[in-house]
Amino acid sequence: MLYGEKNIENAHLELWENPAVGRDYEIDIEFPEFTCLCPRSGYPDFAAIKITYIPGDYVVELKSLKLYLNSFRGKSISHEQAANVIYDELYNRLKPRYLCVIGDFNPRGNVKTVIKVTSTQT
Amino acid sequence: MLYGEKNIENAHLELWENPAVGRDYEIDIEFPEFTCLCPRSGYPDFAAIKITYIPGDYVVELKSLKLYLNSFRGKSISHEQAANVIYDELYNRLKPRYLCVIGDFNPRGNVKTVIKVTSTQT
Amino acid sequence: MLYGEKNIENAHLELWENPAVGRDYEIDIEFPEFTCLCPRSGYPDFAAIKITYIPGDYVVELKSLKLYLNSFRGKSISHEQAANVIYDELYNRLKPRYLCVIGDFNPRGNVKTVIKVTSTQT
Amino acid sequence: MLYGEKNIENAHLELWENPAVGRDYEIDIEFPEFTCLCPRSGYPDFAAIKITYIPGDYVVELKSLKLYLNSFRGKSISHEQAANVIYDELYNRLKPRYLCVIGDFNPRGNVKTVIKVTSTQT
Amino acid sequence: MLYGEKNIENAHLELWENPAVGRDYEIDIEFPEFTCLCPRSGYPDFAAIKITYIPGDYVVELKSLKLYLNSFRGKSISHEQAANVIYDELYNRLKPRYLCVIGDFNPRGNVKTVIKVTSTQT
Amino acid sequence: MLYGEKNIENAHLELWENPAVGRDYEIDIEFPEFTCLCPRSGYPDFAAIKITYIPGDYVVELKSLKLYLNSFRGKSISHEQAANVIYDELYNRLKPRYLCVIGDFNPRGNVKTVIKVTSTQT
Amino acid sequence: MLYGEKNIENAHLELWENPAVGRDYEIDIEFPEFTCLCPRSGYPDFAAIKITYIPGDYVVELKSLKLYLNSFRGKSISHEQAANVIYDELYNRLKPRYLCVIGDFNPRGNVKTVIKVTSTQT
Amino acid sequence: MLYGEKNIENAHLELWENPAVGRDYEIDIEFPEFTCLCPRSGYPDFAAIKITYIPGDYVVELKSLKLYLNSFRGKSISHEQAANVIYDELYNRLKPRYLCVIGDFNPRGNVKTVIKVTSTQT
Amino acid sequence: MLYGEKNIENAHLELWENPAVGRDYEIDIEFPEFTCLCPRSGYPDFAAIKITYIPGDYVVELKSLKLYLNSFRGKSISHEQAANVIYDELYNRLKPRYLCVIGDFNPRGNVKTVIKVTSTQT
Amino acid sequence: MLYGEKNIENAHLELWENPAVGRDYEIDIEFPEFTCLCPRSGYPDFAAIKITYIPGDYVVELKSLKLYLNSFRGKSISHEQAANVIYDELYNRLKPRYLCVIGDFNPRGNVKTVIKVTSTQT
Repeated sequence: MLYGEKNIENAHLELWENPAVGRDYEIDIEFPEFTCLCPRSGYPDFAAIKITYIPGDYVVELKSLKLYLNSFRGKSISHEQAANVIYDELYNRLKPRYLCVIGDFNPRGNVKTVIKVTSTQT
Repeated sequence: MLYGEKNIENAHLELWENPAVGRDYEIDIEFPEFTCLCPRSGYPDFAAIKITYIPGDYVVELKSLKLYLNSFRGKSISHEQAANVIYDELYNRLKPRYLCVIGDFNPRGNVKTVIKVTSTQT
Repeated sequence: MLYGEKNIENAHLELWENPAVGRDYEIDIEFPEFTCLCPRSGYPDFAAIKITYIPGDYVVELKSLKLYLNSFRGKSISHEQAANVIYDELYNRLKPRYLCVIGDFNPRGNVKTVIKVTSTQT
Repeated sequence: MLYGEKNIENAHLELWENPAVGRDYEIDIEFPEFTCLCPRSGYPDFAAIKITYIPGDYVVELKSLKLYLNSFRGKSISHEQAANVIYDELYNRLKPRYLCVIGDFNPRGNVKTVIKVTSTQT
Repeated sequence: MLYGEKNIENAHLELWENPAVGRDYEIDIEFPEFTCLCPRSGYPDFAAIKITYIPGDYVVELKSLKLYLNSFRGKSISHEQAANVIYDELYNRLKPRYLCVIGDFNPRGNVKTVIKVTSTQT
Repeated sequence: MLYGEKNIENAHLELWENPAVGRDYEIDIEFPEFTCLCPRSGYPDFAAIKITYIPGDYVVELKSLKLYLNSFRGKSISHEQAANVIYDELYNRLKPRYLCVIGDFNPRGNVKTVIKVTSTQT
Repeated sequence: MLYGEKNIENAHLELWENPAVGRDYEIDIEFPEFTCLCPRSGYPDFAAIKITYIPGDYVVELKSLKLYLNSFRGKSISHEQAANVIYDELYNRLKPRYLCVIGDFNPRGNVKTVIKVTSTQT
Repeated sequence: MLYGEKNIENAHLELWENPAVGRDYEIDIEFPEFTCLCPRSGYPDFAAIKITYIPGDYVVELKSLKLYLNSFRGKSISHEQAANVIYDELYNRLKPRYLCVIGDFNPRGNVKTVIKVTSTQT
Repeated sequence: MLYGEKNIENAHLELWENPAVGRDYEIDIEFPEFTCLCPRSGYPDFAAIKITYIPGDYVVELKSLKLYLNSFRGKSISHEQAANVIYDELYNRLKPRYLCVIGDFNPRGNVKTVIKVTSTQT
Repeated sequence: MLYGEKNIENAHLELWENPAVGRDYEIDIEFPEFTCLCPRSGYPDFAAIKITYIPGDYVVELKSLKLYLNSFRGKSISHEQAANVIYDELYNRLKPRYLCVIGDFNPRGNVKTVIKVTSTQT
């Protein structure tokens, strides 16, 4: 087993101390290479995952985030679930002051879907 | 009759349980291949249909939505009616917390029209 | 005289009943082929006219709107007047709940001008 | 039956005399609203049809061309066949000095296809 | 009658001496505000006119060219004729080493047309 | 001295009566060919000047505005001063209900600067 | 095992008869969702695969092509090899008159790579 | 040592008097050539730095700002720290009425990050 | 008189030795801030100047080229002359193996002009 | 000293065997984060380096190429020299059938320069 495969298998979010704890500032992250499997057909799905948050005591280390998102490659999960699962994992680990997760999925059957989960009620 | 024709003829919106019922999150859907017939001339009209909603107890299954929108291909209906009919069908079936339907029609006689129906008063 | 010329000469806005009277929804219209004459020089001016409204009891029929906008081709009128005259005509005939008219004129002497008239005070 | 439906049902290419017969000049035409039916599934397909030709004794009248292309709406035909059938019809009727027909189809199953038929060997 | 109207009525191409007669260099001109009338319907047509030439003994003065192109505003002329007439006028007056005239017309009935006349056989 | 040079030398803003005095409407103007001189180095600076206003009793005549902006060509003035001077001149002459002046300058030393002066406190 | 997974596991290119055998025409195909594994690290790679060919006796059926390209999801293969393997498979099965395969890979380590294999010597 | 290297080594923000002290106006600055070193790996990072402020008594001189931003070329600093350090330096020196600093970093490991620090709580 | 004004007044092209004399390679230069005066009206004209050359024994030093192009700011010169004068100056000084000069001028009277002078006959 | 710094210090191009030696195919590489120092001023320069080649017996390993290009960060070198040095290094090591190196540099003093070195005489 190659080191990349091992790293993805063992992926978990690593937390770092926020270097500016007393300040409300925003971190935007975009990962355009998300892929998982459709739970009904088994065909692959593709999405860009976009994350915006205002950190509390911690920021997420970027390489561990990439590995965590890579770990969905073999999972069967719907569009709506994928966005909500990523949101919950980030929210529970980071306890940020604000969090928004967007799953921007490639069209399937000519229908394009975008799921947006945010800690502010819209 | 081919299976696709049959599926479109029998199209109706299928509902799935919302996987995150207690949370206000947004679902954006875009379908760029909507076509119907002009009720005055009989010539075809073309539009992109854009739907945004915050689900209540249900989300709409995407393939059934595509088939429902495909079913307008042989219908004679004006721009304003098409947008309002789709809005009503989605609103009555999904009972969402928020709904917006946009019909973005191709120009006719050099005039481009966009119809926007939303559950929030503008 | 050809039928198109006659139609433009006799142009007046035709009203249709609003198919969803009890609902606030938005209609956006764009007409990129507006032309009139500069009242000082007699040279032609060109603009895109953009109209947004929330209908009351009526919607405007699109072909009659196109003919009405075509009828400015031989008129001498300034940028500011053109936008205000179109606004007044639409407002008085449609009695909409909201109306915005934008005249987006091509540059003259390297100066580009856009005029925006709206029923909401800015 | 509305006049538009009748016009499409009776569609055939109308020829006009070329106003500059002794000269090689190029005519480019683009029609973005082509739709037909997939012969295997019955689902609708969508394409832009692009035509370039150098006329011989005739040019094609544009409204009759639009009606001819509209007449594919109810036909079951593959991507490759559609492009070749349109090419053959134009070539046999117009006898142009040069002809190129491109069918630029919307993606199906995330695969985008463009078919290009031309009287010059590539 | 205003001076602009008079200037357009009396429009004719003015020639200037080529400041670099012994050299083959290229002049590209684009005029995006061409409008004329459809000879069948009387409705207005709109186009961008693009001209490329290698001058011989003369170059065309730009203001006189603009006025000449403005003078089509009240003329009934087809797409193909307009491009060929402008080509002939420029070719006969300028006697350039090379000339290309393109009429890039706005869509009519959802069909977009571009006419290209050039002194090189394609 | 040519007439253009004289016109620029004598430039001053000309006011016209507002054709719709009792109404709050917006006028947007963009002039992409502003140039002046850096007061430190003497090198030329370039900018687009963007003006938005809601007129009171007057609107500014566009040709006089162009000449006024042309008159900065030989002046030594900083980015911040240029935007504030233009704002003051327009505000004092037009007494508009609202005014915003933006100076969007080309990069110098790989640093791009935009100055925005507005009658609404931000 | 879901039907999609089975279809991908059993993927092989299906051939259809060319509907216009005696004619040189071009077919362009783009598949933006190609993914495989880096043979050194095990990390996922992403690419768009673009195919252009002039068919001989056969055309490739599009769904079988999609499944064939999906089947690289679990394979460890370099950028250069992937493009050459796909080229060889298509060339040997289709025996086309012309073939070009492009692998347009996402950047790795800020370096973007595109591989182009074609039956015409460059 | 060349003069550019010396200027960067001695870089410090130079302040100029605000030419319009009693007025709230906005200054936007963009510097697309920021580079520093990753504190973990030593590899270079690249970003565009965007600054928006409403000046108090002072504005920042642009060349000194460029030199200050150039001085990060040899520093080991994380994305989050870089944005916060630049914000603190500008805030403490300029004492502006409003300040926003954005670090828009190039992707690393296919993950793109943008850091936004602002004096208004979001 | 400031140093920038002096540098522009004394501008002349500085030549450097070509660092790869025996090799045909291409140098592309673009200067988007060219301005001069119209010889008829005295109004300012604006253009981007684009230069492509294959050097012989010399390359042109870039700052001296910028100053040379800046020196047209006060000159009265037509579009065609400006492009030919710059071409001649570069050709005579650099004696390049190939040279192309393009003057891409901003529209005047809604007419856009591009002049292209090249050492290869077109 | 961090491992990244060490890797850059020891950078040299690593060669891999070409997996399709008997075939002429093209490899395009783009590296947008090239930076070096101006030999006259000491200020940093920035460029995108674009490489196209048809491999002979070897292909270049991409990570070693990135490190090689990173190693220019501290070097004083002109635009023309940088492009020629990279070309020579690649040509001598890879002995490709075709090679093109482009250095696309950011503007300096509002002048943008692109250097293109290729093994085919232009």
